[in-house]
Amino acid sequence: MVTWNNLDTLASWKEVENAKVVNLPEVMAGENGADRVKKYSVPMAEGLVYNYAAKQVDDTILAALAKFADEAQLAEKFEVLYNGEMVNTGEKRLVLHHLTRAQLGDAVMADGVDKRAFYVEQQQKITEFANKVHAGEITNAAGEKFTTVVQIGIGGSDLGPRAIYLALENWAKKNDTFKMEAKFISNVDPDDAAAVLNSIDVAHSLFVLVSKSGTTLETLTNESFVKDALKNAGLDASKHMVAVTSETSPLAKSSDYLAAFFMDDYIGGRYSSSSAVGGAVLSLAFGPEVFAQFLDGAAAADKLAANKDLLQNPAMLDALIGVYERNVLGHLCTAVLPYSQALSRFPAHLQQLDMESNGKSVNRFGEPINYVTGPVIFGEPGTNGQHSFYQLLHQGTDIIPLQFIGYKNNQCGSDVVIQDSTSQQKLNANVVAQIVAFACGKADENHNKNFEGGRPSSIIIGEQVNPGSLGALLSHFENKVMFQGFAWNLNSFDQEGVQLGKVLAKRVLAHETDGALKAYSELLNI
Amino acid sequence: MVTWNNLDTLASWKEVENAKVVNLPEVMAGENGADRVKKYSVPMAEGLVYNYAAKQVDDTILAALAKFADEAQLAEKFEVLYNGEMVNTGEKRLVLHHLTRAQLGDAVMADGVDKRAFYVEQQQKITEFANKVHAGEITNAAGEKFTTVVQIGIGGSDLGPRAIYLALENWAKKNDTFKMEAKFISNVDPDDAAAVLNSIDVAHSLFVLVSKSGTTLETLTNESFVKDALKNAGLDASKHMVAVTSETSPLAKSSDYLAAFFMDDYIGGRYSSSSAVGGAVLSLAFGPEVFAQFLDGAAAADKLAANKDLLQNPAMLDALIGVYERNVLGHLCTAVLPYSQALSRFPAHLQQLDMESNGKSVNRFGEPINYVTGPVIFGEPGTNGQHSFYQLLHQGTDIIPLQFIGYKNNQCGSDVVIQDSTSQQKLNANVVAQIVAFACGKADENHNKNFEGGRPSSIIIGEQVNPGSLGALLSHFENKVMFQGFAWNLNSFDQEGVQLGKVLAKRVLAHETDGALKAYSELLNI
Repeated sequence: MVTWNNLDTLASWKEVENAKVVNLPEVMAGENGADRVKKYSVPMAEGLVYNYAAKQVDDTILAALAKFADEAQLAEKFEVLYNGEMVNTGEKRLVLHHLTRAQLGDAVMADGVDKRAFYVEQQQKITEFANKVHAGEITNAAGEKFTTVVQIGIGGSDLGPRAIYLALENWAKKNDTFKMEAKFISNVDPDDAAAVLNSIDVAHSLFVLVSKSGTTLETLTNESFVKDALKNAGLDASKHMVAVTSETSPLAKSSDYLAAFFMDDYIGGRYSSSSAVGGAVLSLAFGPEVFAQFLDGAAAADKLAANKDLLQNPAMLDALIGVYERNVLGHLCTAVLPYSQALSRFPAHLQQLDMESNGKSVNRFGEPINYVTGPVIFGEPGTNGQHSFYQLLHQGTDIIPLQFIGYKNNQCGSDVVIQDSTSQQKLNANVVAQIVAFACGKADENHNKNFEGGRPSSIIIGEQVNPGSLGALLSHFENKVMFQGFAWNLNSFDQEGVQLGKVLAKRVLAHETDGALKAYSELLNI
Repeated sequence: MVTWNNLDTLASWKEVENAKVVNLPEVMAGENGADRVKKYSVPMAEGLVYNYAAKQVDDTILAALAKFADEAQLAEKFEVLYNGEMVNTGEKRLVLHHLTRAQLGDAVMADGVDKRAFYVEQQQKITEFANKVHAGEITNAAGEKFTTVVQIGIGGSDLGPRAIYLALENWAKKNDTFKMEAKFISNVDPDDAAAVLNSIDVAHSLFVLVSKSGTTLETLTNESFVKDALKNAGLDASKHMVAVTSETSPLAKSSDYLAAFFMDDYIGGRYSSSSAVGGAVLSLAFGPEVFAQFLDGAAAADKLAANKDLLQNPAMLDALIGVYERNVLGHLCTAVLPYSQALSRFPAHLQQLDMESNGKSVNRFGEPINYVTGPVIFGEPGTNGQHSFYQLLHQGTDIIPLQFIGYKNNQCGSDVVIQDSTSQQKLNANVVAQIVAFACGKADENHNKNFEGGRPSSIIIGEQVNPGSLGALLSHFENKVMFQGFAWNLNSFDQEGVQLGKVLAKRVLAHETDGALKAYSELLNI
């Protein structure tokens, strides 16, 4: 039996708060620093490693965090979740996205079906459909193969699948599993759809409309935009579109689509990359086998997240170090800095995942809380970021904890030697240098050239960005955010904060406004 | 004669600190809110308007900020800058990027030449070159027209020009000024260059190598990568490359390039979009006339920034409201939220511009300061962000000030009516709704559905994203950041914080390491 308590009511939390703060430049200097790099490291799935040597922790703080993890029942709460007991208190729904990857615990029945079997069946339907498209058995009206797939979706139906597509596009090309180019339409700004439609050959394009409810206004608007374009090209839209939706949505049985693949209310948008939301577009782009490898990587990471030993559970450890930085050290932001161009949009996905899950001021029972919660997440790939915002990270007046990600090998397999090193070596030398520069700093009599150091970071290291390691990486962050939500006693699976804007936007469109709303509407010609 | 003083030494600053804090939900309610929307608005250049009704200010605070602007001599300091007196104390250089747009004040002589004439001459050389490329007078060795231009550069040589290209690409296509597709290679990760090279026809591509010093390691590495690709395709690299650099760099007189266009040490990377750094690639992509319109828009905004009346100077006003939010209200971040897909990468450029300029802990004399400085900048286009991180903005435990940008018209000119409104109307209804939702909130007995409001925002409103308005927008933010640097008594034009990482990366590559640096190097196979 788990109990849900606010972080500041737990006795072990006091111990965390009272532990002596680590002097990072001091402990990271010399051989002690090298020892920390070797010691403060835990294997993740798919050959990834989570190294937290440059975080502001030591054995005392880690022991206190381990006690807190026990008292807060973090592992037990995950068990409750994956065994299908209700967790999303706000929307009164199960939280089942882990089941899209594997059966981690007990069978979960809901809506009269076994949910693992349901998700497997959907991915099986997608696999058959994608194979037929690739084989030229499902074609356009002229009997020609589809060459492009276009996802129409927003938020969770866009950011995750888009980030994953970009991460694997060049890997797939290199490994001969690339099947179709993918594009994405998300914004209700008509310039978004217009630009994508201008860049593709609509006659050979297949559109994947993604909306769980079937009522997302942006997505339905863009669907109409696309249908108009298909009609204007003399094409039958229903032969160019599939839907990813819930079985109860108006899209589910519509004859407007070649096929419909289902997800359900138990998978939140930001956790839906491993469901049909990611499955359809990614199976079409790279082949179902590649998506299966991605799911296997995520499943392996989920399994590690179930470990009750904090020091053997990278997601939980990452989560609690983050809570320590947020609530004890008082840092608002976390920068995600992948040293891999393939992960260029991965920070944007994590931004949604984290900020939409834990950017909340009430606990899971709807009671106001007395401590800060989810951080602001931002980031860009290194080394690009070094030539951009790192100045503030190194010498700004506030400390921003950092999450580096690096890989031993690139995807393209080609490289060039300049000044005795490859590009890949330069890339990795930079991430190593940055970690140490941030942690240790460097004293200089010229204050303008002085680096105080003491800026904490961790790094996830892998062999290569490939489907398996990417699945493991995604799952790591999903589970990290989940554990932080447990620690803060939040419901990480609803998003009531997006509702008021929707309501007011409808009033603006209906011209049912007064005051500031009306005055702004006039300025924007609505 | 200007004097440079720390913010906290100015008498007028105490007045700012002591002014009564505005209750935003209260003042933005009802007709008073409507009055604020009409009153708290100032024209910018090119038909843009800066509206700050939903900022946490009132007449008292604005009067205090105006006094502070006077005492801190913000307008006079800008005058010193554009008249070419030394301002970049760290690097002991003039700061002359405004001269790339127009002669705002006195003639500025440096290195024995009139600098305005020098910049004009460079853009004239670019114009002639671009016109010849477009006319097929400069071609590849086979006498065929170039169809693609690829910028090779990082940081300021990448983010600004890339953001501007993306902002104007569809406008140019719609207005028949689109000449060549542009691509960008920046990251030292070889996967970046490999992916771009895979996506283009190198035989018809022209590469623009951008490095002021001619020694930027990432850029030279990528140049070699590209040269290898050209050689492997049986092409003469020197017939496919131009350089943008300083006259004193090793690239300036090299026979490796078809042509060289010059900038100089008086233009920092992040302020270089209006120099040859942006001029070459954008003139090639859209035609020199389009780039000229962009420069005119920037020049018009610069002129407004010279106004000594705070309430008539949108850049200075935006700057001081930001300083108030940072130093009095205590907010660390600012989110930039353009409701225009064309501006998808504009926040990434502003992130560099702002964080690299003002993320500093010492004043312009190298003395430590006792107040916080530059904010963390992040952002994504709306409505996409609404479905992502807005949850935290609405209901998170920390307040994040917001900078909205919106336009009355889209670029593509096509639209679709769904539920009685166009996409453009939906887009704009959303930004209006968000401003009011953030400012006013909405009480609900269910705490989970409660919105406290009090979250300040401003909005810049324009007719359309086009070359002129984009130039004005860019200049607005450049000048805003400059004024904030003046207010904080920083040197906003150097970036010593990026040096330590460079030094350590070299040591890693030379295997001259010990301690943590060596231990991390082993983990990453360097």
